[in-house]
Amino acid sequence: MASNMITSSHCSFLILLFLLLSASFTATSAQWVWPKPRTLSWPSQLATILSPHFTISSPYHHHLSPAVNRYRLQILTEFHRPLVPPRVNLSNSSPPLQTLTIAVKDLAAPLQHSVDESYTLVIPTASSTANLTAETVWGAMRGLETFSQLVWGSKPPLLVPVGLHVWDSPLFEHRGILLDTSRNYYPVDDILRTIKAMSANKLNVFHWHITDSHSFPLMLPSEPDLAAKGSYGSEMLYSPADVATIVRFGLEHGVRVLPEIDSPAHTGSWAVAYPDIVTCANMFWWPAESEWADRLASEPGTGQLNPLNPNTYQVLKNVIGDAVALFPEPFYHAGGDEIIPGCWKADPAIQSFLSENGTLSQLLEKFVNSTFPYIVSLNRTVVYWEDILLDANVKVDPSFLPPEHTILQTWNNGPNNTKLIVSSGYRAIVSSSEFYYLDCGHGGFVGNDSQYDPPPTSGGGGNGGSWCGPFKTWQTIYNYDIAYGLTPAETKLVLGGEVALWSEQADPTVLDVRIWPRASAMAETLWSGNRDESGKKRYAEAMDRLHEWRHRMVKKGIRAEPLQPLWCVKNPGMCNTVHPST
Amino acid sequence: MASNMITSSHCSFLILLFLLLSASFTATSAQWVWPKPRTLSWPSQLATILSPHFTISSPYHHHLSPAVNRYRLQILTEFHRPLVPPRVNLSNSSPPLQTLTIAVKDLAAPLQHSVDESYTLVIPTASSTANLTAETVWGAMRGLETFSQLVWGSKPPLLVPVGLHVWDSPLFEHRGILLDTSRNYYPVDDILRTIKAMSANKLNVFHWHITDSHSFPLMLPSEPDLAAKGSYGSEMLYSPADVATIVRFGLEHGVRVLPEIDSPAHTGSWAVAYPDIVTCANMFWWPAESEWADRLASEPGTGQLNPLNPNTYQVLKNVIGDAVALFPEPFYHAGGDEIIPGCWKADPAIQSFLSENGTLSQLLEKFVNSTFPYIVSLNRTVVYWEDILLDANVKVDPSFLPPEHTILQTWNNGPNNTKLIVSSGYRAIVSSSEFYYLDCGHGGFVGNDSQYDPPPTSGGGGNGGSWCGPFKTWQTIYNYDIAYGLTPAETKLVLGGEVALWSEQADPTVLDVRIWPRASAMAETLWSGNRDESGKKRYAEAMDRLHEWRHRMVKKGIRAEPLQPLWCVKNPGMCNTVHPST
Repeated sequence: MASNMITSSHCSFLILLFLLLSASFTATSAQWVWPKPRTLSWPSQLATILSPHFTISSPYHHHLSPAVNRYRLQILTEFHRPLVPPRVNLSNSSPPLQTLTIAVKDLAAPLQHSVDESYTLVIPTASSTANLTAETVWGAMRGLETFSQLVWGSKPPLLVPVGLHVWDSPLFEHRGILLDTSRNYYPVDDILRTIKAMSANKLNVFHWHITDSHSFPLMLPSEPDLAAKGSYGSEMLYSPADVATIVRFGLEHGVRVLPEIDSPAHTGSWAVAYPDIVTCANMFWWPAESEWADRLASEPGTGQLNPLNPNTYQVLKNVIGDAVALFPEPFYHAGGDEIIPGCWKADPAIQSFLSENGTLSQLLEKFVNSTFPYIVSLNRTVVYWEDILLDANVKVDPSFLPPEHTILQTWNNGPNNTKLIVSSGYRAIVSSSEFYYLDCGHGGFVGNDSQYDPPPTSGGGGNGGSWCGPFKTWQTIYNYDIAYGLTPAETKLVLGGEVALWSEQADPTVLDVRIWPRASAMAETLWSGNRDESGKKRYAEAMDRLHEWRHRMVKKGIRAEPLQPLWCVKNPGMCNTVHPST
Repeated sequence: MASNMITSSHCSFLILLFLLLSASFTATSAQWVWPKPRTLSWPSQLATILSPHFTISSPYHHHLSPAVNRYRLQILTEFHRPLVPPRVNLSNSSPPLQTLTIAVKDLAAPLQHSVDESYTLVIPTASSTANLTAETVWGAMRGLETFSQLVWGSKPPLLVPVGLHVWDSPLFEHRGILLDTSRNYYPVDDILRTIKAMSANKLNVFHWHITDSHSFPLMLPSEPDLAAKGSYGSEMLYSPADVATIVRFGLEHGVRVLPEIDSPAHTGSWAVAYPDIVTCANMFWWPAESEWADRLASEPGTGQLNPLNPNTYQVLKNVIGDAVALFPEPFYHAGGDEIIPGCWKADPAIQSFLSENGTLSQLLEKFVNSTFPYIVSLNRTVVYWEDILLDANVKVDPSFLPPEHTILQTWNNGPNNTKLIVSSGYRAIVSSSEFYYLDCGHGGFVGNDSQYDPPPTSGGGGNGGSWCGPFKTWQTIYNYDIAYGLTPAETKLVLGGEVALWSEQADPTVLDVRIWPRASAMAETLWSGNRDESGKKRYAEAMDRLHEWRHRMVKKGIRAEPLQPLWCVKNPGMCNTVHPST
């Protein structure tokens, strides 16, 4: 069993190796890579020792080189102990692995949408060197992550498979997490930890929903009063230096940071600094005795930018200009969701406009026409929520939004709205609230709710008490096919997806447990799909592997939710609904 | 505004006080005590300074005295800063509060069910001494908690209300949390932190579901093999010293530690040490092609103690004897839930018994008759899950369980089963799975589940994907009336309730967020009810106060879930469904 390349000084290694390798289990180390690579071949099931002097040889690149240093340290110090020890044999012909050599064809390709993330990883049987080749530094980072997941051992010597070949490339190019930092604030360290975990899951877009009606935590050099007055306080701000830290951290982890400054709705917090540009600010969101259709906001926290006030655009151009300067990302998310008629109708100037046969949609078209061309002039592709085209009451004519500069993010009606968007020729990012909203199902946040008054004849709160309940389980997320019902041509317009953590009922105490491992479920679906080679969904196999991956994330400091009793992973197959032998 | 009792050296205090008191908000400090006391009178809304040399004078008691020391330290170092600063005036006639004097009438009363927990707390206007009087040391601990919650101030000087009178006593005497440490293991520190948080919420029973089919983590001196072989490993054990630590910690926090060793079902883990006494051990839980009625266990993880094997009772008596020795608590929970016919039917001896016209219920009666009298002989009141009397297939005749020695814990059918139990003359502990199960709604843990295969036309997982979904929101828990539909005489048999954290999908990463603040919601309902003086449920008021209390728990190191945007508590009433002015 022992390699003939190992000298006698490695005798204690051999005893350990014997202990490591003597247990007979069904899992193999290559099976627990998450997300599963597109192709992974390891016919021999052989392993070798990772040299304690293991190094990574890489061309210099200001973002790749920090990643290389980080991965080398992680690989040598993680000491990952799988819940189910792998069943491998030690190769007779393999020396300890000394070096991983990285080759990158295009060192200049920037991190942006559609950048090539493919890589090839080869760990030969009879060599002390493994090879990672990639088109770009971003593909190299993905390959480094895969390599790091292949190494295991609770103490030296670490082991690594040999005779292994991986070719990998994502099915979808946009794989993200939305975090709302307005309803509740998250310290910078929480955001960095989230980006780090995203990178480990090969997710590549941190969609930062920075501002909303509840707080405006982003300190902008040209409009400092927005945050100074509209944030939750001086200790709950993101300074330009904080943003630079987050953006750079993202680059070193292969994660784009896509900013969203939502407007014209969801802007109540702007009114603290600029009361004149916000309609219906500081009003009760749903006036007593009024119908739902006459509410002033989609939820408590009123305020919409006034499209008829010229000052609105002066402030907005400063905001957009600053945001574009702070975030190098070529996409800019301009919001555009949930414009509530009642809020605009509360303004006297808008009342006059409407009384002269103007429409709410014309107001939105004026707003878009006064902002969209400016954003495009700054070399940004504009992302809007689908509402801007699909809302029943307030929407713009598609002619205002040329598809070459516009992407729509869908969140309603599951696959139906995705179909509407791409069949109209627009690119789509999928964040279906029925599948991808991570905050749902934990009750309502609105107070004084009499729905809980009736006698306790049943559990109440039917689906978990929030509008988008129930809680979206990892299985619900994993099994969602974001291109369901689309033609091949339409499917090409689906850039990818984002799970979303809205923060009405989330804050730092639950950040990790709400996101992980459910975002991992989406990460695999968008990277390599949710089906095996035969086209069958990977139910049991994915759960076993996700259980191991969740365990590894917890050890990395990510408080991911547990999926099963530990007993299940120690008794493979026994927690299934159907016995594996049938 | 400033007190004439404050000397000039307190000038910096006065400036701070002015800052603290000048903001005008609607909340008052006494409004945020959780759970709300039965009566609290504070007509003056006046406060005074808590002396930096504040002391608590108390009679010596080996469990109360450590609590007194702990509370004094906490009061002087917590520096609680309410989210909404209280609107109070500084008393003109009050000196700084120097002393809280505790008087206890019956120092000898042990911590057990129905011990008197009432207390009276008086903080006079013109005195440097406050008085806490209680019948027992356990009531004194409740009063200390209330006093500690009344103190606030983000830096010295701390403030405390004066002219305040509290009389308090719980509506229900049994107020608990069940934690399952078998499906997944929790380190001792997690259990201690949970008990500490329970004490802060005036909860008084830690129901420790120690063992189950998945692991047997309790090291018993007379049966060491059960844990040595049946636990998840040597680092996932509770030693007798650990138990002693937990029991003592409970006593010093006024929390009883009620052990449950479930049997005869839920005992698969016993089979590792004693394969002969466990039927259907290590079998697949739901054989392929078989009906649900023919499954071998309620969930993956099979095994039931064999009532026909004399060795079963030899092991059980050792287990019960050791458990009674380790836990001074006068209640002993013997389990008795979910006996699955298929598991017993898998045993040849039982097959013979049944073929000779024996019944499954007779087997259970034999089991109960061989264990119940022994437990009673050890001076324990036996708690069983309701199944032992109410199960459709396997149950005992009530004559086997005299009500004076038996308590039934209900978990099915909401108020209906509570009614069945108490109308039969048994005492009941309410843990309705529809209202009080904290683990529900986070998906199924069983693998290879094809229910997620259909195309994504809706969110899937209807109520959250687990049998007891949806997730039980704090509102669902708060508004459950555990004595609904009972006569006054029947209501007296309802001892109280327990929220339950089963651990198929819980472990240390989610312990706090699953329990808190939802257990706080039950804590108030069982302590002082969920209605105001007029009989109306406390919707809005409870949410505002729970938001503050959750904030305070987080600062104490309990990762309680957030309820709302911070904006809501900073804008009182604005997050309600109906405007407070209507």
